[in-house]
Amino acid sequence: MGPKMKIPVTTVNRLSLYLRVFSQIEKAGNDTISSKELAEVSGINSAQVRKDLAYFGQFGRRGVGYPVAELKKQIRGILGLDRDWNAAIFGAGRLGQALMMYPGFGAYSFHMVAAFDSDPDKISWELEGIRIYDLADLKRQAKDLKIEIAILAVPAAVAQDVANRIVAAKIPAILNFAPAHLNVPAGTMLRNVDFASELEALTYFLQKT
Amino acid sequence: MGPKMKIPVTTVNRLSLYLRVFSQIEKAGNDTISSKELAEVSGINSAQVRKDLAYFGQFGRRGVGYPVAELKKQIRGILGLDRDWNAAIFGAGRLGQALMMYPGFGAYSFHMVAAFDSDPDKISWELEGIRIYDLADLKRQAKDLKIEIAILAVPAAVAQDVANRIVAAKIPAILNFAPAHLNVPAGTMLRNVDFASELEALTYFLQKT
Repeated sequence: MGPKMKIPVTTVNRLSLYLRVFSQIEKAGNDTISSKELAEVSGINSAQVRKDLAYFGQFGRRGVGYPVAELKKQIRGILGLDRDWNAAIFGAGRLGQALMMYPGFGAYSFHMVAAFDSDPDKISWELEGIRIYDLADLKRQAKDLKIEIAILAVPAAVAQDVANRIVAAKIPAILNFAPAHLNVPAGTMLRNVDFASELEALTYFLQKT
Repeated sequence: MGPKMKIPVTTVNRLSLYLRVFSQIEKAGNDTISSKELAEVSGINSAQVRKDLAYFGQFGRRGVGYPVAELKKQIRGILGLDRDWNAAIFGAGRLGQALMMYPGFGAYSFHMVAAFDSDPDKISWELEGIRIYDLADLKRQAKDLKIEIAILAVPAAVAQDVANRIVAAKIPAILNFAPAHLNVPAGTMLRNVDFASELEALTYFLQKT
């Protein structure tokens, strides 16, 4: 299956989850996984898992399972993780700094090449080797540093304004942590991370216990 | 539809997204929404939206649309958001402090009643009215403050240890921000927030542009 095939967002999210399961399986010293096992560990129902795995052709073998390394490679290719991506963090407050120090990005294909802020006390400062640039220099730095993904960690009140600057600097994707609804043109990919919404999924299940 | 009906996790996530769309619609001064409009704003396909809305009975009217306030109330009830939930933040580092200051929680049903850390320099300190308690006092405080949800923002290396303490203190749900795989008993609800995985969904779509 080539990277041009269209997959729904929910499937993309599951592929991402499967990748994590495969890494656990490898750490545990195993090199194959059955669809039943993948269903159990990932919490996805087994019919769905089999349907997802069918995208990748018939290389699972009855009684032997799927080769983890091969599945991982295929899924990484589909998700676009077989190459590196340059990302920058917008807002060097508590959340921005936490993201600059987050060890989870480096293990994948993401390079945090810069942070941006407009506070003179923060500009030119470095954290974990990531330099904080003046937001006013965004256009030039976005081009020089080849920034492809903007991670927005500014206060909600200024989120739209900073998003507009990101769009103007031709950065094609935004991961938005600010609790604000953003308007971006159709050519910009936007994904919102909403901490409260993560909690809502828990309360649904909590009330049943 | 009563709160006892079983809904898949993916549907629960969509309900949470719809709630946000309804709030936008209300802010824009409208009190009804069509399934087509909800599909467009939420980015969910319209067949799925109609299927989801069918859970809530037949109160959408052809040509008039669904009453937003009523839908909101019903979905909040289903998600368990018609009552308050007490949550505590574990780890008062950069991420923990960012979460203590995150304005998105208060607007919903979540009360951050405490934070916990084991650093003597942080204990007894307050941020946004949230006091930081000694992790060693967790059992007593969890009971006194009636903590129902633990938000884990500690370094990956200590995440399992702190999760064990949370389980021992009988807190039934954990929202895990640490990039670590946690083992918890079946009676504990666990949800993992993985920032890298949010980025992976973007790269899939980015490579097609």
